[in-house]
Amino acid sequence: MGRWEPDSRGRLQEAALALYFERGFDQTTAAQIADRAGVTERTFFRHFADKREVLFGGSALLKERIVDGVAGAPAGDGPLDAVAQGLEAAAAMLGEFRRDLSRQRQAVIAANPELSERELAKLADYAAAVAAALRQRGVTEPQATLAAEAGMTVLRIALQRWAGGDEDLDLAATMRAGLAELRALAAYG
Amino acid sequence: MGRWEPDSRGRLQEAALALYFERGFDQTTAAQIADRAGVTERTFFRHFADKREVLFGGSALLKERIVDGVAGAPAGDGPLDAVAQGLEAAAAMLGEFRRDLSRQRQAVIAANPELSERELAKLADYAAAVAAALRQRGVTEPQATLAAEAGMTVLRIALQRWAGGDEDLDLAATMRAGLAELRALAAYG
Repeated sequence: MGRWEPDSRGRLQEAALALYFERGFDQTTAAQIADRAGVTERTFFRHFADKREVLFGGSALLKERIVDGVAGAPAGDGPLDAVAQGLEAAAAMLGEFRRDLSRQRQAVIAANPELSERELAKLADYAAAVAAALRQRGVTEPQATLAAEAGMTVLRIALQRWAGGDEDLDLAATMRAGLAELRALAAYG
Repeated sequence: MGRWEPDSRGRLQEAALALYFERGFDQTTAAQIADRAGVTERTFFRHFADKREVLFGGSALLKERIVDGVAGAPAGDGPLDAVAQGLEAAAAMLGEFRRDLSRQRQAVIAANPELSERELAKLADYAAAVAAALRQRGVTEPQATLAAEAGMTVLRIALQRWAGGDEDLDLAATMRAGLAELRALAAYG
């Protein structure tokens, strides 16, 4: 391995997800990930603070995009329409990822209670940030929290469908469909 | 202290919540709880497996009540109406608890990231069970999960309002108001 390492971050991510998926998260070491990616362990730690960060590294940026989407929605938009703008921003960012890697990531998290709790905490944190952005827009409670939490449920379901589904599925369209289901549900049920 | 210990479980619970609230969960020992409750440490462990169980001991029963409420809703009820029956059952059980103890419990959990993650995992588990009960009623996905998750958000918000609010607040009425807000939100926003 030379000093020039094209996309070692991407290769490390791919290697880590494959190993977490095959052996389990707890059974995988940073050294094994580096080895499979063809880089040194030091290179792994140059890109990631720890094994968890491979799974949760993008979450601060995603939260920022979602909140910016909500905050930037047209002034006349209601709470769920503003949340829809946040979901569009999320879909634009997440839709860039490889679907097979998203699927592996979800399977790895579902198989590990500690990672599942971390994922839930992440979504709860997004929801709290979205609710705060809605309150900034003048939405009162409990509507702000209800809309934010429902939006994050839509996000989670859409990601599962997208990652697990066939190639034709569009993430943004799946999120829009989820929001429409939510509106229909409230009107009917 | 004699061998006859009237309501030692209740006294232990009250002592534990007070200590968790005053000193923090991690800084409190089972011995201190027993001491404040006027019982032996052995009595503490006869009632609770560990310090956490004081906070989460009733959760399996609550989940059962909620699921039974959903399953027992009239056959013609839509998903959110069935969820409303689950929330009525939850309110009937939770409304029995002392409001000041609920408030302490929530403050203790909010102050501790690990306990917060556990609480989130508990609500996610309830939501999954409610979604399963809705599917049993013929509700399809994603409506089942959307309705179940929204219902658990309503439960959480209502509990916070009830525990933090004045004495006149009725838990069941607060939950009904939350569901009405959710419907209004979906129709408007």
